[in-house]
Amino acid sequence: MSYEKTELNTVKRGGHKARYDKMLIHEILDAVEVCHVAFNIEGRAQVQPVNFGRSGETLYIHGSPKNRMTRALIESGEACLSVMILDSMKLTRSAFHHSVNFRSVVVFGRVEELKSDEQKVEGLKTIINHFVPGRWEHCRPPTKKELKATRVIAIHIESASAKVADGEPTDEREDYDSGYWAGVIPVTTVYGYPRADSRLKPGLSLPGHVLDFYRAKNKKS
Amino acid sequence: MSYEKTELNTVKRGGHKARYDKMLIHEILDAVEVCHVAFNIEGRAQVQPVNFGRSGETLYIHGSPKNRMTRALIESGEACLSVMILDSMKLTRSAFHHSVNFRSVVVFGRVEELKSDEQKVEGLKTIINHFVPGRWEHCRPPTKKELKATRVIAIHIESASAKVADGEPTDEREDYDSGYWAGVIPVTTVYGYPRADSRLKPGLSLPGHVLDFYRAKNKKS
Repeated sequence: MSYEKTELNTVKRGGHKARYDKMLIHEILDAVEVCHVAFNIEGRAQVQPVNFGRSGETLYIHGSPKNRMTRALIESGEACLSVMILDSMKLTRSAFHHSVNFRSVVVFGRVEELKSDEQKVEGLKTIINHFVPGRWEHCRPPTKKELKATRVIAIHIESASAKVADGEPTDEREDYDSGYWAGVIPVTTVYGYPRADSRLKPGLSLPGHVLDFYRAKNKKS
Repeated sequence: MSYEKTELNTVKRGGHKARYDKMLIHEILDAVEVCHVAFNIEGRAQVQPVNFGRSGETLYIHGSPKNRMTRALIESGEACLSVMILDSMKLTRSAFHHSVNFRSVVVFGRVEELKSDEQKVEGLKTIINHFVPGRWEHCRPPTKKELKATRVIAIHIESASAKVADGEPTDEREDYDSGYWAGVIPVTTVYGYPRADSRLKPGLSLPGHVLDFYRAKNKKS
């Protein structure tokens, strides 16, 4: 299953890196905690990093009811966001061919403000379980007052694309003999062992879902 | 020295995390390889990840002359970009208080397209040396043809802000006794040991500037 290629999501530059496969795009989105969301304030394009969650073809973000970004997104009715995972830095013999191996996604979606407490809870649950799978069942759910202090919006994916670069450094043929060093610096995001809060209630041990998260992130691929 | 607080860059939400100190903002920008740039295409706000470089109060990005993002930025004359470094995930007893420790920057700037070869080389040099300090002196500079195939734009910082969160998980007083586990999962970006290209010219050893980069990234702070 792939996202349909439209004027909006078709990768124009570096087309050989373009991917439209839904499973791959979901996998990249699920691997990260933070996305960067574009929005317009008085016609000026702005961008902010924000936590998010994904469930199927819907992404959720949340903020204070006074948050300008979520308000701007609701007003425009549409959203574009991107995520990027840097996998390595490629140092080539020529300045021109320096590049990175990476996995990125750009999503275009329709914005819906979630109004009922049930909808908001569903969105927040998705965000918390995106953060650490299974977490929602192991923390106190929001009170009415907390829900009132939270704006939750759904971004229904209408279109998306990924770019994936995963190759060796490449130079012009005539540069290979030039005497300049070339190589790769791998870059990895490392999740350390979970550390209990200093004010933890005595007798509580590390829960299984947190240990599972740590192990999944540190599984050799 | 700080960036002046204006309508544009003043952090409205989470104001206690806001920082306007230039040195801190430069430090966060210099710690990362990739930023996310907002731009408008037919009134629709979009965002894309892109490599960049910083020299003083100017950021540089580059792309193909056909690149829609750089074209849109030149047309609008202004740019907004953000970077975010995730330092840890904070798991709290309540769903509501889950958060992250992070360092982020949002920059607003005036866009200038660099037209002369001299200006373009200066921009590209900044990008390459932002990637790996000292790299420019150790690779082949761009040819006339390569420069022609590259659009380089300068973003002169007019306004910027950082947000920094670096605290312990915090819960409502009544939740501390609840029996839910709370804690922190540290997140680190690790730069591995540089690996030579398989087609490296025999006899070339790892250059000092690459080793220095590796050591600087792995220095215990």
